[in-house]
Amino acid sequence: MKPVLAADIGGTNIRLALVSQDGHIIDEKRVTAELSRHNLQSQQNAETHIINTLVQVIEPFAQQHGLSNMGMGFPGFFHSQSGLLASSPNLPLLKDFALAERLGDRLGISVAIENDALCAAIGEHRYGAGKGHTNLLHITLGTGIGSGLILNSAPYSGEHGMAMEFGHLCIEHHDGRLCGCGNRGCVEAYASATAIIRRYSECCGKECDAKSVFELAQQGDSCALRIMQEAGQYLGMAIAEAVKLLDVTTITVSGGLSGAWDILHPALISELNTNLIPPLKGKTDVLRSTLDDNAGLLGAAAIASMI
Amino acid sequence: MKPVLAADIGGTNIRLALVSQDGHIIDEKRVTAELSRHNLQSQQNAETHIINTLVQVIEPFAQQHGLSNMGMGFPGFFHSQSGLLASSPNLPLLKDFALAERLGDRLGISVAIENDALCAAIGEHRYGAGKGHTNLLHITLGTGIGSGLILNSAPYSGEHGMAMEFGHLCIEHHDGRLCGCGNRGCVEAYASATAIIRRYSECCGKECDAKSVFELAQQGDSCALRIMQEAGQYLGMAIAEAVKLLDVTTITVSGGLSGAWDILHPALISELNTNLIPPLKGKTDVLRSTLDDNAGLLGAAAIASMI
Repeated sequence: MKPVLAADIGGTNIRLALVSQDGHIIDEKRVTAELSRHNLQSQQNAETHIINTLVQVIEPFAQQHGLSNMGMGFPGFFHSQSGLLASSPNLPLLKDFALAERLGDRLGISVAIENDALCAAIGEHRYGAGKGHTNLLHITLGTGIGSGLILNSAPYSGEHGMAMEFGHLCIEHHDGRLCGCGNRGCVEAYASATAIIRRYSECCGKECDAKSVFELAQQGDSCALRIMQEAGQYLGMAIAEAVKLLDVTTITVSGGLSGAWDILHPALISELNTNLIPPLKGKTDVLRSTLDDNAGLLGAAAIASMI
Repeated sequence: MKPVLAADIGGTNIRLALVSQDGHIIDEKRVTAELSRHNLQSQQNAETHIINTLVQVIEPFAQQHGLSNMGMGFPGFFHSQSGLLASSPNLPLLKDFALAERLGDRLGISVAIENDALCAAIGEHRYGAGKGHTNLLHITLGTGIGSGLILNSAPYSGEHGMAMEFGHLCIEHHDGRLCGCGNRGCVEAYASATAIIRRYSECCGKECDAKSVFELAQQGDSCALRIMQEAGQYLGMAIAEAVKLLDVTTITVSGGLSGAWDILHPALISELNTNLIPPLKGKTDVLRSTLDDNAGLLGAAAIASMI
């Protein structure tokens, strides 16, 4: 079967790839593009802006490779029935927008679009550490925490495309840290890259990126080590809540912070099993992604091949 | 179509009913029977005890009505693939037991069995306040808190039949109340009938049943009112966690404590919307069951009619 075009859309970066049916990235391109602009004023302007931006980036790559099918992971919520983009945090003016259809019409190709975090779950399930499992909960530890769910081998997106807001599970009900969503105590406020950077700065007064924090932790820096271990513990607490509701046995974790697996994983597993009910203890495998940064891109390829 | 036999099995009570295809209870019988006995010693003894106990109760009713299909709600976890009873809190000796098959063979009828809390969800979805909704989260507020999930109009039971352990969601991570599961801070330790009775006794030094507590609350007893309002708030917090993961819009609540709806519901809704992420706020309907005590029995009838 023919390779497909996969696109992973971020707030400031777009990744495009030519992907074979067996999940091999044949060619890849990274482009900087600003999705969100603050002077769009109307829904029509926002629609035109997003379509023009995406066409400008994608068209040359699609034409170069003569591709007719594209899958895309996009930071937004999609109605599970209609496939319309319900809303997008980056482009708040967009509402109930036929993004896939409009983009497909302009590019002259078939386009399938899904929420970016769900795409990562689809990729991990089709090609990665979740392969062969009927159900899968996939967590992406990035700037925020994204999550996607596969049930009975099919993506589950909920009634408004907002299922698996795992990053906003509350694991601290008293004076929890403020989260970007406006609530307090969300796991994202403790275990995302943003949270790690902020907590390390508060602890030591030093500014550094998340990767540096977990490298310092691995070198024995006590403050960095405590922050990373606590991140693992909070993740374990939140995963316990998800497992108590969903009774899934396979969890995969990708994203930059999963690089600190040797610190995160033991803390996470211990806290997970502490918080589960007795008959569920010890039944959950939490695996590091085998696709890492490519989970979302390969998930986009997977939905392209389903068109 | 012919009526079916429905059975709702509790720890000490069994309810049997003849139910029409449209969910009307034509005849009903309540029997006291002790499921759990402490001198069973082996799995084989436990299997024989449960089969004999059930046959003794069910056979006369089935023969009286000439029934050939039975559905049963049972307090245990069932493997979703094989249908085997994985385990039961009442009969800890039972493991991977073909309860439906063995019972059907003895009674000479077709038997379908499902977890009792999931049966209540199936009943509410087929015949009650959840009718017509594609997805439904049903909560039974009884001695404990049971819960069942309908996704895409089908019961969802998870990999070990233990999905929707909603009662054990943690809503108090610091010095939470001890729950029967051994953990602390579970919503069941705050909002079940057992918890209400215990909290009222601690508050006022008076022993009374849960119904009396919410009647006192309705009469303005400040201690009872606070306990019932807090139960509503804790339920709202736990429902928020479930909605953040599942993105379901319809929640139904049955069981004795739902009799205090005028106190529970406002407290629950307020806390639910406080804890949701902004795009999900205000989207969830929490409805009082229209079937009450009959949700599980009618769910059993529904699975009987699917055989």
